[in-house]
Amino acid sequence: MEAGLVTESLETAESPTPVTTGTLYGVGMGPGDPDYLTLKALRVLERAPVLVHFCKRGRRGNARTIADAVVRDPAREMALAYPYTTELHPEDPAYVAALAGFYDDAAGRLADHLGAGRDVAILSEGDPFFYGSFMHLWRRLKDRFPVEVVPGVTGMSGCWTRAATPITWGDDVLTVLPATLSAAVLAERLRGTDAAVVMKLGRHLPKVRAVLREAGLLERAVYVERGTMADERVVPLAEKADDEAPYFSMVLVPGQGRRP
Amino acid sequence: MEAGLVTESLETAESPTPVTTGTLYGVGMGPGDPDYLTLKALRVLERAPVLVHFCKRGRRGNARTIADAVVRDPAREMALAYPYTTELHPEDPAYVAALAGFYDDAAGRLADHLGAGRDVAILSEGDPFFYGSFMHLWRRLKDRFPVEVVPGVTGMSGCWTRAATPITWGDDVLTVLPATLSAAVLAERLRGTDAAVVMKLGRHLPKVRAVLREAGLLERAVYVERGTMADERVVPLAEKADDEAPYFSMVLVPGQGRRP
Ligand SMILES: C[S@@+](CC[C@H](N)C(=O)[O-])C[C@H]1O[C@@H](n2cnc3c(N)ncnc32)[C@H](O)[C@@H]1O
Ligand SMILES: C[S@@+](CC[C@H](N)C(=O)[O-])C[C@H]1O[C@@H](n2cnc3c(N)ncnc32)[C@H](O)[C@@H]1O
Repeated sequence: MEAGLVTESLETAESPTPVTTGTLYGVGMGPGDPDYLTLKALRVLERAPVLVHFCKRGRRGNARTIADAVVRDPAREMALAYPYTTELHPEDPAYVAALAGFYDDAAGRLADHLGAGRDVAILSEGDPFFYGSFMHLWRRLKDRFPVEVVPGVTGMSGCWTRAATPITWGDDVLTVLPATLSAAVLAERLRGTDAAVVMKLGRHLPKVRAVLREAGLLERAVYVERGTMADERVVPLAEKADDEAPYFSMVLVPGQGRRP
Repeated sequence: MEAGLVTESLETAESPTPVTTGTLYGVGMGPGDPDYLTLKALRVLERAPVLVHFCKRGRRGNARTIADAVVRDPAREMALAYPYTTELHPEDPAYVAALAGFYDDAAGRLADHLGAGRDVAILSEGDPFFYGSFMHLWRRLKDRFPVEVVPGVTGMSGCWTRAATPITWGDDVLTVLPATLSAAVLAERLRGTDAAVVMKLGRHLPKVRAVLREAGLLERAVYVERGTMADERVVPLAEKADDEAPYFSMVLVPGQGRRP
């Protein structure tokens, strides 16, 4: 566990042996099914002495669940629990300050490991550079430590695979939108697109449904919950009776482009 | 090679033993570096008796090159060379007819294998259901044979990883556009987006550059050629002096959303 950690040696007490810093890995964990881990991700997970994941307080993170097949030694783990901020709006300065403090603190803890020569792997759902929390730690650490990002299969690729539908054909334009945007902005951005993916669904589903209906896209829309995970659900949005949706869900609007 | 192939047995000469049909796999090969293959893709590639890839006449396909680490037995291979149609416009009926004939013919050859009980794996660059040629064979075969799609790391994930830049933050909207669209449509679709990926670059680079300059996005744009492959190139678009771009290149415009 302490491999790479170099402590002061006797003969260089005044000028300590320089510590080789660890590498910060952002590891794309794919959409959920561990079979969709990449060969590279597997290798990093097997070797890195410190494995970090984000979670809600008292719950396991999805990225951590995906890693169950690989992570057997709990001594290597560090869970970063988001501050309790669900009642605050993301634009609220109090929310932003709480999150910033959380990321600063987490980055400090990781810097201690990295500075001591230990590689740190941050497990990221899907692809790390695509709306990933990893990015907030990367931003704080990238100029001080070596970084390697391991791309992953995105959640949306996992979802359209399970919905058994190509997302874009020929010259289709694809628009990816977070459901957290206002109805007006969603409507504006959907206008004229050929294909769409609406992420971060959760409690925003009623708004998204209304916007898609207005845009004439409801009939083509597919709802996917926890795609490729054990309890996945795929249903045409028009047939979904309730408006319940967990955070790990999205709506797909497949394109209809050129098909020679 | 012939596992699964069941031939007529003596006692049922009039009603032949039904042949168990093979499964059609669409295998996402990732962006280029074979380390970004998924565990599932590796397993399918190792086992499927028939491995199919698309290529230009007289050239190796990129998906096939990625598979070099896995495919050792040339007897298992089938190369599908696109008809020579580069002088025709994609909307030209002669082009559409030539492509349709090509896909019909290829689907027929694959159906022979599948009908005889042999699994067929189509190697697809990136993710199979994201602008993939695989989709044209899938469409022709999916109602007759069992299908399994293996999602892959997309080319764009590989490219923003190598460009060392997150593509979307917070509430950023991402627009993915094929460079084959007209300048007017590209400009229209880029208006107001936060982040963009322009695929299928090739000879369309001058047009794309002009549209990005007009939209005020040129300074943020990054050009990535053959991302994650041996001969990859990453350069800020504003610093790229020439207008040469191969088909396997794209332009990324990273978002600038919320960063607590
Ligand atoms: C903060 S974003 C992270 C995206 C991730 N980095 C990726 O590449 O997919 C979280 C959102 O991703 C979507 N998502 C990711 N994986 C998913 C899955 N397996 N099923 C459904 N939605 C998923 C959901 O919309 C969720 O709200
Ligand atoms: C027909 S599309 C196939 C996309 C693929 N299915 C995917 O998921 O990325 C081909 C386009 O993908 C883009 N592309 C795919 N892989 C790439 C790579 N490694 N580097 C640069 N561009 C790539 C290029 O823009 C190319 O013109």
